[in-house]
Amino acid sequence: MNGADALLSTLVANEVTACFANPGTSEMQFVAALDRSPKMRPVLCLFEGVATGAADGYGRIAGGPACTLLHLGPGYGNGLANLHNARRAFTPIVNVIGDHATYHRQYDAPLNSDIPAIVAPNSLWVKSADSPDAVAGLAAEAVAASFGPPGGPVSLILPADSAWLETEGRPVIAQKPVRPAPSGDAVEAAARAIRAAKKPVVLIGGQACLAEGLAEAARLQAAEVTVYSDTFIARTSRGAGVFAPKRMQYFGEMALAELEGVDLMVFVGTTLPVAFFAYPNRPSVLAPEGCETLTLAARSEDAIVGLTALADALNAPTHGPVQPLKLPDAAQAGKLNAYAAGAAIARHMPEDAIVCDDSVTSGAGVAAAAATARPHEVLALTGGAIGAGLPLAIGAAVAAPDRKVISLNGDGAAMYTIQSLWTMARESLDVTVVVFANYTYRILNVEMQRTGAGEAGPSAKKLLDLGDPRTDFVALAQGMGVPAVRCETAEAFEAAFAAAMAQTGPTFIEAVI
Amino acid sequence: MNGADALLSTLVANEVTACFANPGTSEMQFVAALDRSPKMRPVLCLFEGVATGAADGYGRIAGGPACTLLHLGPGYGNGLANLHNARRAFTPIVNVIGDHATYHRQYDAPLNSDIPAIVAPNSLWVKSADSPDAVAGLAAEAVAASFGPPGGPVSLILPADSAWLETEGRPVIAQKPVRPAPSGDAVEAAARAIRAAKKPVVLIGGQACLAEGLAEAARLQAAEVTVYSDTFIARTSRGAGVFAPKRMQYFGEMALAELEGVDLMVFVGTTLPVAFFAYPNRPSVLAPEGCETLTLAARSEDAIVGLTALADALNAPTHGPVQPLKLPDAAQAGKLNAYAAGAAIARHMPEDAIVCDDSVTSGAGVAAAAATARPHEVLALTGGAIGAGLPLAIGAAVAAPDRKVISLNGDGAAMYTIQSLWTMARESLDVTVVVFANYTYRILNVEMQRTGAGEAGPSAKKLLDLGDPRTDFVALAQGMGVPAVRCETAEAFEAAFAAAMAQTGPTFIEAVI
Repeated sequence: MNGADALLSTLVANEVTACFANPGTSEMQFVAALDRSPKMRPVLCLFEGVATGAADGYGRIAGGPACTLLHLGPGYGNGLANLHNARRAFTPIVNVIGDHATYHRQYDAPLNSDIPAIVAPNSLWVKSADSPDAVAGLAAEAVAASFGPPGGPVSLILPADSAWLETEGRPVIAQKPVRPAPSGDAVEAAARAIRAAKKPVVLIGGQACLAEGLAEAARLQAAEVTVYSDTFIARTSRGAGVFAPKRMQYFGEMALAELEGVDLMVFVGTTLPVAFFAYPNRPSVLAPEGCETLTLAARSEDAIVGLTALADALNAPTHGPVQPLKLPDAAQAGKLNAYAAGAAIARHMPEDAIVCDDSVTSGAGVAAAAATARPHEVLALTGGAIGAGLPLAIGAAVAAPDRKVISLNGDGAAMYTIQSLWTMARESLDVTVVVFANYTYRILNVEMQRTGAGEAGPSAKKLLDLGDPRTDFVALAQGMGVPAVRCETAEAFEAAFAAAMAQTGPTFIEAVI
Repeated sequence: MNGADALLSTLVANEVTACFANPGTSEMQFVAALDRSPKMRPVLCLFEGVATGAADGYGRIAGGPACTLLHLGPGYGNGLANLHNARRAFTPIVNVIGDHATYHRQYDAPLNSDIPAIVAPNSLWVKSADSPDAVAGLAAEAVAASFGPPGGPVSLILPADSAWLETEGRPVIAQKPVRPAPSGDAVEAAARAIRAAKKPVVLIGGQACLAEGLAEAARLQAAEVTVYSDTFIARTSRGAGVFAPKRMQYFGEMALAELEGVDLMVFVGTTLPVAFFAYPNRPSVLAPEGCETLTLAARSEDAIVGLTALADALNAPTHGPVQPLKLPDAAQAGKLNAYAAGAAIARHMPEDAIVCDDSVTSGAGVAAAAATARPHEVLALTGGAIGAGLPLAIGAAVAAPDRKVISLNGDGAAMYTIQSLWTMARESLDVTVVVFANYTYRILNVEMQRTGAGEAGPSAKKLLDLGDPRTDFVALAQGMGVPAVRCETAEAFEAAFAAAMAQTGPTFIEAVI
């Protein structure tokens, strides 16, 4: 076998079985080796930002890494923003980055660049397999490193000659690291502080927001400790039968107003909350002044074990409050807006659906109704780099082919990685895409005020407005092979979304709001 | 004024008057300040790879930098690949990268990342303006640094508070560096070596391929020194009245076969040629064994002065050979292919047109016919990161509104930055886009053989084939507001291209080949 075979056999041996790719010449040996590794599923993405976002969605749902296949520094660059999001989601991903042959690097050919430098800021681990014999061992190291804890993208650079030269390449099994439980001292300290506090709050994030964590967090709520979750969560459960913690508000001053009087914040699977952006004369840190803070479980620790221990220490009931099943009674009517769309989504979304949310200002409309919908999971935009909603859905659908995937996107966000639609059609993925078309970067109109920049004049408006021309998303979707419909009324959206849930395969709804 | 005003007034004072942008919250002050700097033209791009590629096209044609406006590390990341191309084109670009407020960075908010690390590999110069008073001076430094020589992208990081805080901010004028002339010794050495050589070759690149450089290079050809150009040139003249040097072949073994017997290579505005990729048992360096090499003018030196001095030293005639005007006689007929399309393009392309070429395997068909077309300029893919052809055209059209811009793209390449079409419509740019749709990454089918990877089986084909589904490019273009037509015959293409040349504004042709 050659180095590419060695890489694939170690990846597959470690249950890395999906490869989101856009290869070039330096990756041709890996591509050819795929035919000899039928357990690896190759998924072509027409742009690397789709590939990395898909790997993020896959890793969040599968709980283990997919690999990407990227073409040198520029290929990685195209995927960088969604790897930033994945880093912020702590999603395990093994990036395989093809490079020039080791002996060719010195000549600085046109595609040469400083790959280790470019990838370092968004990689937990970076190594280059500079000989074919090193490939299998490093691939196993990469897989192990991607699990963290708490996990994240890693980057394995594969020079072309390491791929084409022969090697023995026995598969190497990765030692998957174990998340340590928080110390008994930390649990005791948290319990003691909560008992002593007047208005304690527990803030959960990451692993603590998975279904199992929410069940334990609900016990705290039952013990009259208010539970908040981070604003943007990599993966969480929502809907009927699920505990719904309060959510940290996006805007800092609103978050602080809500937290007024809180004298203790205990962090579980997350850290001290901070404002998403700075604004003139507004706070960066979102804890009330003088509030005591302490960490029960760091992101790298087992937050679920921590929550259970804390609930036990507080003698909390074995079960806490969960959401009722309460679907909006009837279809809404009239001009479509995000709330009417949200009601329709809540009414028809099946149990166990996966919602990939990059809907920015329209998201609130869906969250409101979905809070008591059939139980489902939500993958949010963790790193603030828009363009994740479509690729995440690709990865989620590949990881969970039996679950309905719903991708919610602002129109500005959707245009970042619109090529995703082609891959959904290519792979017949069971994804329903909704694009909320308001023809503006709505959030920026709000932010312009908040940053003190004043009213947008003609030049500023040219950078905020998306309405000239109006993108015809139906044409784009159909042009990439995805059946599509445009809805301007609540009735039309209700019908379109119901039809989408009743069928299988990719479909697209442009929601004009 | 605030820091954002200071930045804009220094940029405008230094003739940086186009801003290709996709801003976020941290850039809102810059956006607002645009209304107070009417000389700066803001051009919204729906994805940052469009913005950076447009800045590349602008800089190549204008000879000075545009600025980009990018949203922290992820925004830059989205633009990285086309900045890689710009670095390889030595195009001056001033990237303005918004960042969190200086005091907010420490909290590692979701969009935080190591911006200096991410930008360094593709930036000639990187600084962060960490106070409003530093902005104007650093902006002037950035502009100056972007000129090199030989020029390239630079990165000015602008924290949000440096933008919103007040400053005096008098505009600072950049000291544009001068390209030094090659030394007299270098000229004499080159002339002596050429006289002594049996089969000397001069290889020109960069600045030497501009119209003025080609005229001097033609004199060398008239003195019986064979002139080659680099394979991919940032900007060069072509067609009737223009000297056509031989072009270094893309595949190394073909290049070396052509250079057989060459005993001297003199480099002017370029360096020792190397293979684009390495292949098993094929050479990396594209100079015959034992061939003497020397540099007349480094990329940072004035290559045109160098060529003139060398031609004088060799007593070359004052004029050399130029291409005749020879248009294909008649429209071709039958099934469309790249050569038939090339003939139609050559017949109808007006004088002074700018061709932005990202057409990969289809490019040869156009180059053949265009060699004797009306004189025009060509901007090539310099860094190998596909997805440049559409954005380059945006920038070229903004820099030269009176010239017809023609963007030639492979279908795989076009999908990388397809969002460009929206900006062409938005700005009513006079760009005719051609996408050659062969429904495969054709080049990779060739490269798979050459790398010794063998025949593509079913898995490999899944990563090379673009035909399932077939992208309907006409739908995509129309969906983004650009009138479009699909051509499957040579007659249809001839008619569509002639019509495109006869009108003004964006138009799109899907050439099914």
